[in-house]
Amino acid sequence: MDKGIRPNRNTVLRLTQYKNMLHRLKSLGFERVFSDNLAGAVGVTASQVRRDFAFFGISGNKRGGYAIDALIEKMRSLLGKGSIQKVIIVGAGHIGQALMHYKGFVKEGIRIVAAFDIDAQKQDQHQRIPVFSMECMQPYAREHDIKLGIICVPEHAAQEVFDQMLDTPIEGVLNFAPMRLIAHRDCEVHNVNVGLELETVVYFVNAKHQGVRYADSAS
Amino acid sequence: MDKGIRPNRNTVLRLTQYKNMLHRLKSLGFERVFSDNLAGAVGVTASQVRRDFAFFGISGNKRGGYAIDALIEKMRSLLGKGSIQKVIIVGAGHIGQALMHYKGFVKEGIRIVAAFDIDAQKQDQHQRIPVFSMECMQPYAREHDIKLGIICVPEHAAQEVFDQMLDTPIEGVLNFAPMRLIAHRDCEVHNVNVGLELETVVYFVNAKHQGVRYADSAS
Repeated sequence: MDKGIRPNRNTVLRLTQYKNMLHRLKSLGFERVFSDNLAGAVGVTASQVRRDFAFFGISGNKRGGYAIDALIEKMRSLLGKGSIQKVIIVGAGHIGQALMHYKGFVKEGIRIVAAFDIDAQKQDQHQRIPVFSMECMQPYAREHDIKLGIICVPEHAAQEVFDQMLDTPIEGVLNFAPMRLIAHRDCEVHNVNVGLELETVVYFVNAKHQGVRYADSAS
Repeated sequence: MDKGIRPNRNTVLRLTQYKNMLHRLKSLGFERVFSDNLAGAVGVTASQVRRDFAFFGISGNKRGGYAIDALIEKMRSLLGKGSIQKVIIVGAGHIGQALMHYKGFVKEGIRIVAAFDIDAQKQDQHQRIPVFSMECMQPYAREHDIKLGIICVPEHAAQEVFDQMLDTPIEGVLNFAPMRLIAHRDCEVHNVNVGLELETVVYFVNAKHQGVRYADSAS
């Protein structure tokens, strides 16, 4: 990859998928992998895999494929898994609780260290992941130099929580509130909108039934 | 849109975002909207909005913009919101529970009608959304002609649940298990992998600190 060219989000998502698949192949005893293998497992074309690898400066050879150990090491350095990433959650409702119990994070070197909620009934400092009052969020994030936050509050509160996060060392946010957050300083925000995702599935199912023809009916 | 050309997932996601934003503008008293307004609100370029609209056969004019009511009507017909969409959930753990309490679905015409779990302790037929035993899933889906399912079970159980869904009328699946499902018949599957999303944010935050240069360090 040329210095300074930023990969887009989908490329990084695929890279993460390749990495997870490589770990599985390794655990099954494989030592080498071909772009075709990875393509099939991740659900993209083999040429996409090779383009992605070339973009990140990873080379293989057609006959021998790629050495899995070397690939994993490379992915690790690209994806920055050298040290544990500490994450805080704001909003300990159903989605927040689901994330606090999500097992997939630990193996990826991501650790949720604390949660915060305005509701005193949800606060509990004696759980595995303590839930503090909202007033503690900024002091905690500053003291522990937290770089990552997850927003799981209702839509009407999300922007205020985000503004508060921007006054801490937080540089990346995963936002589950169904709205677009506006940043007053540089911060990486990705959105997970479950409603939109489900609507998209609905659309494709409907489209199949109706036959996909829209231009004719356009006014 | 030409007959038979299938829009990609990102296009449909944007269409859904436009529609949600149009509802908000309408509730604020607006009657007309320009592609620039929508672009700013959704976070894309104005030319992207115009390209998307043209793709779906929606035309406006440069001076007057688009009539919001007509656009909403058009979006509704494209996104198939004429009738309530019934959805079932398999897996009533933390993510399943979060979805059962998610308020965003109702306003989109999506209704979660039942959930299913192998754990007898999670089963409860007297909740607002009843949780039945896993054995009831296929008979329920057939009897109620369910077209949409959400999979929130652990990774090791996801493929088996999916196989069972494929023997019902279900045609679209939203999968929260962090794995790729393999279908033996046509079914629209979208994946929401929370771990991958967070890893992607981690990547971009790390990349900013390290300066984005990988090709140099490639072996």
